[in-house]
Amino acid sequence: MILVNGEYKTHIPVTDRGFQYGDGLFETIEVRRGQAVFLDQHINRLYQGCLKLHIPAPSLEVLRFEITALCNKFNTSPENTGDCILKIIITRGSGGRGYRQPDSIEPTRIISVHPWPHYPQDYAKQGISARICQTRVGLNPLLAGIKHLNRLEQVMARAEWHDPDIQEGFMLDINGHIIEGTMSNIFFVKDGTLHTPILCHSGIAGIIRGIIIELAHRNHLAISEHLFFTEVLLSADEIFITNSIIGIWPVKQLETHSYPIGSLTQQLQIWLDQFKKQQDDHAL
Amino acid sequence: MILVNGEYKTHIPVTDRGFQYGDGLFETIEVRRGQAVFLDQHINRLYQGCLKLHIPAPSLEVLRFEITALCNKFNTSPENTGDCILKIIITRGSGGRGYRQPDSIEPTRIISVHPWPHYPQDYAKQGISARICQTRVGLNPLLAGIKHLNRLEQVMARAEWHDPDIQEGFMLDINGHIIEGTMSNIFFVKDGTLHTPILCHSGIAGIIRGIIIELAHRNHLAISEHLFFTEVLLSADEIFITNSIIGIWPVKQLETHSYPIGSLTQQLQIWLDQFKKQQDDHAL
Repeated sequence: MILVNGEYKTHIPVTDRGFQYGDGLFETIEVRRGQAVFLDQHINRLYQGCLKLHIPAPSLEVLRFEITALCNKFNTSPENTGDCILKIIITRGSGGRGYRQPDSIEPTRIISVHPWPHYPQDYAKQGISARICQTRVGLNPLLAGIKHLNRLEQVMARAEWHDPDIQEGFMLDINGHIIEGTMSNIFFVKDGTLHTPILCHSGIAGIIRGIIIELAHRNHLAISEHLFFTEVLLSADEIFITNSIIGIWPVKQLETHSYPIGSLTQQLQIWLDQFKKQQDDHAL
Repeated sequence: MILVNGEYKTHIPVTDRGFQYGDGLFETIEVRRGQAVFLDQHINRLYQGCLKLHIPAPSLEVLRFEITALCNKFNTSPENTGDCILKIIITRGSGGRGYRQPDSIEPTRIISVHPWPHYPQDYAKQGISARICQTRVGLNPLLAGIKHLNRLEQVMARAEWHDPDIQEGFMLDINGHIIEGTMSNIFFVKDGTLHTPILCHSGIAGIIRGIIIELAHRNHLAISEHLFFTEVLLSADEIFITNSIIGIWPVKQLETHSYPIGSLTQQLQIWLDQFKKQQDDHAL
């Protein structure tokens, strides 16, 4: 189910700059019992991205109206529990000559809902297996952090393995620093301190990543954003990954190294659930 | 005029991975008197890109058939001289879960024709003005050279200036090396030797760039592909840029530095024209 600029459609013009150049942004959002989770944070990141790419942002009213309409419509079918994935794409629309953007930008706004993926419950409790990818993430300070549509690196990295027992691949930048998973952010615990890659040169600043950092501060947990190499990660006490759909998944295996489901990881899962519930109560 | 998988259409599915992730490639080709110029070279680069991205390449027969059909159709209107721009886009099509590609890839093939841009003749004879862009090109050896659909960096660089007297912006990588123009490759001449950035970490390996290198070899001209900084470029004897639509444009001004229309630049323009004519004769 897809809304393109407010109308139910399945297609976009070939001329759309999102298609021609990846000239746009997106958000992937959890919808739980019909409610978009951490919607304020997602819209905030989307707006920051629009600002950076000089794409006029859609109004909050329009976004909220269309999101609600789509979630309601999706959840009217009896087989639905109200859980689904919401995706927002904003592009610079059509026009311009080559890379040059048009003088007057008419952005394309696409809001779509997708079935909830239903990952095995095990992943959150028993942990997942991860690998190190060969495909590197490029370095570009201008585009670092934002969730833009230039995602070939992630596509190529995810194509590196077919083993269904491996759920995520970790990507390094060209200097060998760990940056992110193909679809997630990475955290590790060492001697009681939480570590995560700093994303000033590459990577996507995930919403759950931001919330984990906030939760760490609130709970007086030592946290450090910095660049580190694979060896540092491999010697961690606990490793976990985050994104808006999976929440927090502990990593039980990275290449040939095994890790326990650590107490800090489990504590953060509890805090994240509580934080989600607070936001939910606040929204009601 | 657009052919999408062999049918005249104007739209593609929102689900196309070209739109969702920039998961594809493109070619921009000169059509002169109804004939696609350097078509073999363009198709060869497209095939190399497909190989690198693991996208099944369209057959040569289909490509040639559709290109001919489209060029003929475009040129039946009386106001047409047979000169136009041909664009080919190949994407991984729809499907897959997130970044993960589908087990069976059904690529999208888009062939379109566009009016010839008619740049002022002056540019090729009197030269153009260029600037240095703030937007950097990222470093990624895997994607370097190929003409993929992740082109936000070029879009952002081209958005840096509105002065119609500046025709091109030069982009540096994050280490400060000159890589390319937003829409062109860069050459300079110093003490009789031709220099151009080596594109093993970033940049697009342009068709005309490849031909210039071949022409230099054929004519026993010293040519060097390497990485260099802005100061080296600024101290050049001659500078020129190349792409498939503009051919060779001398650079008469780069920031505050002026350059003559050099004899080697003019010689290469003549050789390029001759080479184009030879290929054309060969094709007939």
